[in-house]
Amino acid sequence: MTTTVIEVPARTGKAVELRAGSAVKLINTRGSQVVDTWGFNRADLSEHMSMEHTRVMLGRVNPRVADNLFSNRRRPMLTLAEDTSPGVHDTLRAACDPVRYKMLGFDQHASCAENLVAALAALGLSAPHSPCPLNMFENCPVGADGALVVVPPPVKAGDYVVLRAVIDTIVVFSTCPMDVFPTNGADKTPKPVAYQVLPG
Amino acid sequence: MTTTVIEVPARTGKAVELRAGSAVKLINTRGSQVVDTWGFNRADLSEHMSMEHTRVMLGRVNPRVADNLFSNRRRPMLTLAEDTSPGVHDTLRAACDPVRYKMLGFDQHASCAENLVAALAALGLSAPHSPCPLNMFENCPVGADGALVVVPPPVKAGDYVVLRAVIDTIVVFSTCPMDVFPTNGADKTPKPVAYQVLPG
Repeated sequence: MTTTVIEVPARTGKAVELRAGSAVKLINTRGSQVVDTWGFNRADLSEHMSMEHTRVMLGRVNPRVADNLFSNRRRPMLTLAEDTSPGVHDTLRAACDPVRYKMLGFDQHASCAENLVAALAALGLSAPHSPCPLNMFENCPVGADGALVVVPPPVKAGDYVVLRAVIDTIVVFSTCPMDVFPTNGADKTPKPVAYQVLPG
Repeated sequence: MTTTVIEVPARTGKAVELRAGSAVKLINTRGSQVVDTWGFNRADLSEHMSMEHTRVMLGRVNPRVADNLFSNRRRPMLTLAEDTSPGVHDTLRAACDPVRYKMLGFDQHASCAENLVAALAALGLSAPHSPCPLNMFENCPVGADGALVVVPPPVKAGDYVVLRAVIDTIVVFSTCPMDVFPTNGADKTPKPVAYQVLPG
């Protein structure tokens, strides 16, 4: 069974419903694009993918292929089933939001935090709060002194990850609109990505 | 004006109301004890100290003296005003909770997540959700490969930190009950700490 490839335009968000056992392939169509990613238990949105629980459960800052991504109730929610990129992802950084852009001098600027809200609203849903996302493809190494500096992602056009649902999960993707820092490449230009649901 | 030194017994939590400008001195009475620490806006508990926002605002994994600790709305909530310890604190790890202890083989075990709930309840309050704490004194270095391993804290008896409130803040401390790993020292023994409010 072939399913449609759906584009997520630059600077926007999209929510995807995954049944347990099915998966979503997230394709970095043009390369260098960071995708803030959230997971919510379909039956109870107060259970969500949690970076601070995932780090403890994995004993590692960043997930690798075959790792589970855990919820705030320490349940496996998604599995990072495949990754053709160099495997650089971030679990440390809050989603960008209007306050951040205001501090950077922009009164009107798309943000991942707003994209999350809008993507869930398109399904008639709202999350009780805004969890820290898994920043797929974001390159923010931890310096020896603990410094965090975002540098361009080592991701080429066509690289993809596959997330498999362990439980019925709403996955939300946001193509990060950051154009002040090289979050989305040295050209500082947000780009679209695409996804495809893979039935279980 | 001298204020009382209040003990936080081992394995328990305590909530402290701080007016803007006042501070709390947290004393590691016997050394080696980790203290999970939260902050909530007194006027609206949905605004809370956020590790993922603090890391972005500081550009660093861990706060240092004179750093602000930011809320999920990117406002300075507390300032790490003094620190006589070696300055090793953790922002990466979720609070321990009953699920974690069940996985470790304990059906009944005190936890920081429950201590947070109980400490707020003692003031007639409840938080909308359980944010990632600032794990004061916790020693969880990030390995070169991203590995996270908790080792004994380099904190001696009498070391203290001072947190000054930027806005009216409820601070919650939990003396971490972890006794499976050397979180609270090589003796794996949870210990009491103490705090003292310092008027502004």
